[in-house]
Amino acid sequence: MQSLHESLNKYNKSDILPMHMPGHKRRSDALPDWNLWEMDFTEVPGLDNLYEAEDIIKEAADRLTESYEVKKSYMLVNGSTGGLLTAIAACVKTDDTILVARNCHKAVYNAAYLNRLTCRYVYPKVINEWDIYGGIEPSDVRTALEADKSIRAVVITSPTYEGIVSDVEAIAKVVHEYNIPLIVDEAHGAHLKLMEESPKSAVDCGADIVVQSFHKLLPALTQTAVMHLVNDKYVDEERLSRYYSMYQTSSPSYLFMASIDYALEYMLSERARQTKYFEELKVFKEKLEVLKNIGIMKRDALIGAGVYDLDPTKLLISCRNKALSGKELEEILLKDYKIQAEMSKGSNVLLMTSVMDDEPVFDRVYEALCDIDRRFVGECKSDDEGIVGLSGRYEYMYHAVTSMTSYRAMNSDVAEVSLDDAAWCVSAEYVYIYPPGVPVLVPGELITDELIRIIKHYRDEYRETKQGAQKRLLGLSDKCAENILVVDND
Amino acid sequence: MQSLHESLNKYNKSDILPMHMPGHKRRSDALPDWNLWEMDFTEVPGLDNLYEAEDIIKEAADRLTESYEVKKSYMLVNGSTGGLLTAIAACVKTDDTILVARNCHKAVYNAAYLNRLTCRYVYPKVINEWDIYGGIEPSDVRTALEADKSIRAVVITSPTYEGIVSDVEAIAKVVHEYNIPLIVDEAHGAHLKLMEESPKSAVDCGADIVVQSFHKLLPALTQTAVMHLVNDKYVDEERLSRYYSMYQTSSPSYLFMASIDYALEYMLSERARQTKYFEELKVFKEKLEVLKNIGIMKRDALIGAGVYDLDPTKLLISCRNKALSGKELEEILLKDYKIQAEMSKGSNVLLMTSVMDDEPVFDRVYEALCDIDRRFVGECKSDDEGIVGLSGRYEYMYHAVTSMTSYRAMNSDVAEVSLDDAAWCVSAEYVYIYPPGVPVLVPGELITDELIRIIKHYRDEYRETKQGAQKRLLGLSDKCAENILVVDND
Repeated sequence: MQSLHESLNKYNKSDILPMHMPGHKRRSDALPDWNLWEMDFTEVPGLDNLYEAEDIIKEAADRLTESYEVKKSYMLVNGSTGGLLTAIAACVKTDDTILVARNCHKAVYNAAYLNRLTCRYVYPKVINEWDIYGGIEPSDVRTALEADKSIRAVVITSPTYEGIVSDVEAIAKVVHEYNIPLIVDEAHGAHLKLMEESPKSAVDCGADIVVQSFHKLLPALTQTAVMHLVNDKYVDEERLSRYYSMYQTSSPSYLFMASIDYALEYMLSERARQTKYFEELKVFKEKLEVLKNIGIMKRDALIGAGVYDLDPTKLLISCRNKALSGKELEEILLKDYKIQAEMSKGSNVLLMTSVMDDEPVFDRVYEALCDIDRRFVGECKSDDEGIVGLSGRYEYMYHAVTSMTSYRAMNSDVAEVSLDDAAWCVSAEYVYIYPPGVPVLVPGELITDELIRIIKHYRDEYRETKQGAQKRLLGLSDKCAENILVVDND
Repeated sequence: MQSLHESLNKYNKSDILPMHMPGHKRRSDALPDWNLWEMDFTEVPGLDNLYEAEDIIKEAADRLTESYEVKKSYMLVNGSTGGLLTAIAACVKTDDTILVARNCHKAVYNAAYLNRLTCRYVYPKVINEWDIYGGIEPSDVRTALEADKSIRAVVITSPTYEGIVSDVEAIAKVVHEYNIPLIVDEAHGAHLKLMEESPKSAVDCGADIVVQSFHKLLPALTQTAVMHLVNDKYVDEERLSRYYSMYQTSSPSYLFMASIDYALEYMLSERARQTKYFEELKVFKEKLEVLKNIGIMKRDALIGAGVYDLDPTKLLISCRNKALSGKELEEILLKDYKIQAEMSKGSNVLLMTSVMDDEPVFDRVYEALCDIDRRFVGECKSDDEGIVGLSGRYEYMYHAVTSMTSYRAMNSDVAEVSLDDAAWCVSAEYVYIYPPGVPVLVPGELITDELIRIIKHYRDEYRETKQGAQKRLLGLSDKCAENILVVDND
């Protein structure tokens, strides 16, 4: 049996190109030569303390505060997860009501559970052509806030995994009319503020708290993130600090903190590298115009269809006419070209670029895509009723019906019933369509007839194809997806 | 301004000997040559997923399960903090009652807050000679459980920071008579099960959940820990998994996971090194017998005085007759001998050894202690009324009076009042005597006359001496410790 380290080492030697996170792309040739043992300190005199920072840790946090031009920045060592748990808990009290964009990260749902919150949802627009969510409409936020005046905070994700940016400025204006805070999960957008060629960051659009993963797009270690308190008009800073030190370890990693500090320094100082990266990325995308069967998602075609802006660093591709599913395309990229994508979903494949990618990287991806484009000419499947198209459409259109809080549902007596008998019961478990992990069913929500059809669809898709669906339908404790846990009213 | 990395690098070059955490002691010469960037992966196909582990991460977790001989082990990337939050939340529902050893880590108090728990306390014995807590008496646990039948779980710390081991076997028997689970914070005892010469680990004493920091005593990176479900008779495994994935990031560090796996492998394979370490430690301690003014805490002198066993890896020292305070001794060790202790408290200084320490390390500490022993002959302060002795006695003897949950107190309207006006108000904030961070006052507890005297004592000690007390009296939002936040009943 191999140790975990040996497995990682073996993977490293496989020469697979990482078109995925983390943003440093494991480019040890271009990154500082740090010894992980020598840098792994604890809080001794002279090295400060994360939760009572006065010295070198405070200076590093202050550099973030200045660069992002916010009231106060907090280094996170438990990922954006820790930041979202902190931000939400700080803005509500238990049993409050919150407005959540349905495509928020699992951590937001967990925060709702932990604080026994009632959730109202705002549903993003759907971009059917790409099987992805679009942005959140300010008018939808207004409608939701108008419908329930007990809402205490609003949480949205922008940009999304695929780079879709919402009109945060307009949304913040609406939210502030109700004198409540807007929390933006900008996990995929830590680079926006630091890169000139990018869409505007939520920190500049009036959001009150912004949470950013540093490892996703920047050259920082996995699990690092930053939380910004942009302004404290609607947020109690003391409460934010309180939960910050609750949800994070009392032994924070100095490797992580130094890595956050390094990523910031890199972004501020390596401007030439960034300019070059954007030029290379642009040339790469222009060259991809020759492709006949592989389509690339483009900003200009999206704007106005529920999308405010698009992060150019993400590359979403798919086979025109569904010649290949996203999963098939992802597998071909890996097996035949040793390129690992970030993820595939429905018809699409997401490739993640970062400032650590250079011309040889783009060339390798370009050659692979050109080759695939040639190889699969004419192998079109039906473009109307294929599994891919169907799966894409189904999951997005469904709107949930909430009956009780997820906390109450998951702490009630439960019963396992067959899907056929579950209609109009209250679910006691999540059902996710993964990736990107958006739940179609949250504990406390009613199991509608339509939802049963959706679950069966994914279950049967997996049974029939014996691939893919295992990773798509998640959450059910019954791995065969025959049964579901419901709140037992007896 | 220096980057965080430059500050750490500078510290490394100072040649200060780390008699503190982490257990790997930054001994890059004796540790594997890992490239932190190349090993910093994300969850891509072939590299498994922490929260749905089926492959290489499951194998690593299984190695822990087998080695610790438990039902299931969970790798933690948010420290023991994440494990304690998880374990407690899994064993209670909100608004339940829990029995907590008063010397538990802050994370236990935070778990009580987050779940709105009512806390009952069991107070450890005090070892006045050493200014430290002793063990928890099984009979005290029984008295507390008998007094409040609504208690749903028990949490204790064993070993303590200083290595004091309680009779977990007897305590587990008592707790199980009430059909509730025993959670043991074994943050300072991950090595116990793996080292033959150690006291028995809680995993072998009938505890239900055991949480261990891996970085504290083992050669693992800071922030790594492990949670063991020893048996599931009183614990719902599904609930444990639920909170495990809530309190930890969805982007767990592979560096951390590989480091946990490595530490286990090291402990299982490097038996000769461990035997040598224990021999060197023994010789070192025997040599220290010649010291006249510096005393070493010894196991045999403690047993029977509220102490069941003592972890031999910790070295607690103090000046006999209080010739020097712990703080002074710690500072002399650092300034004159470049030895950084783990911490000082009252009259004592704690030096932490680990399997990474060898003869040159022990020799350097021995020479330093011998020299200090010679230098401070005859410089005795009063041994009866010195600040040190007083401070030790005060904080331990005080028993709290709970009025409401910490959640309720910290979410009420609060008022800031002077300490003199605070008598019999309900506190809205913590007051800690740090280190080791034991709270003398928890939000929701009554501010008694005795407590006001204690707080004033530490405040005035700092004012008079202009040192030490700043790090001893913590938690009050009024840094001058003139005022305190109380629940406002108006």
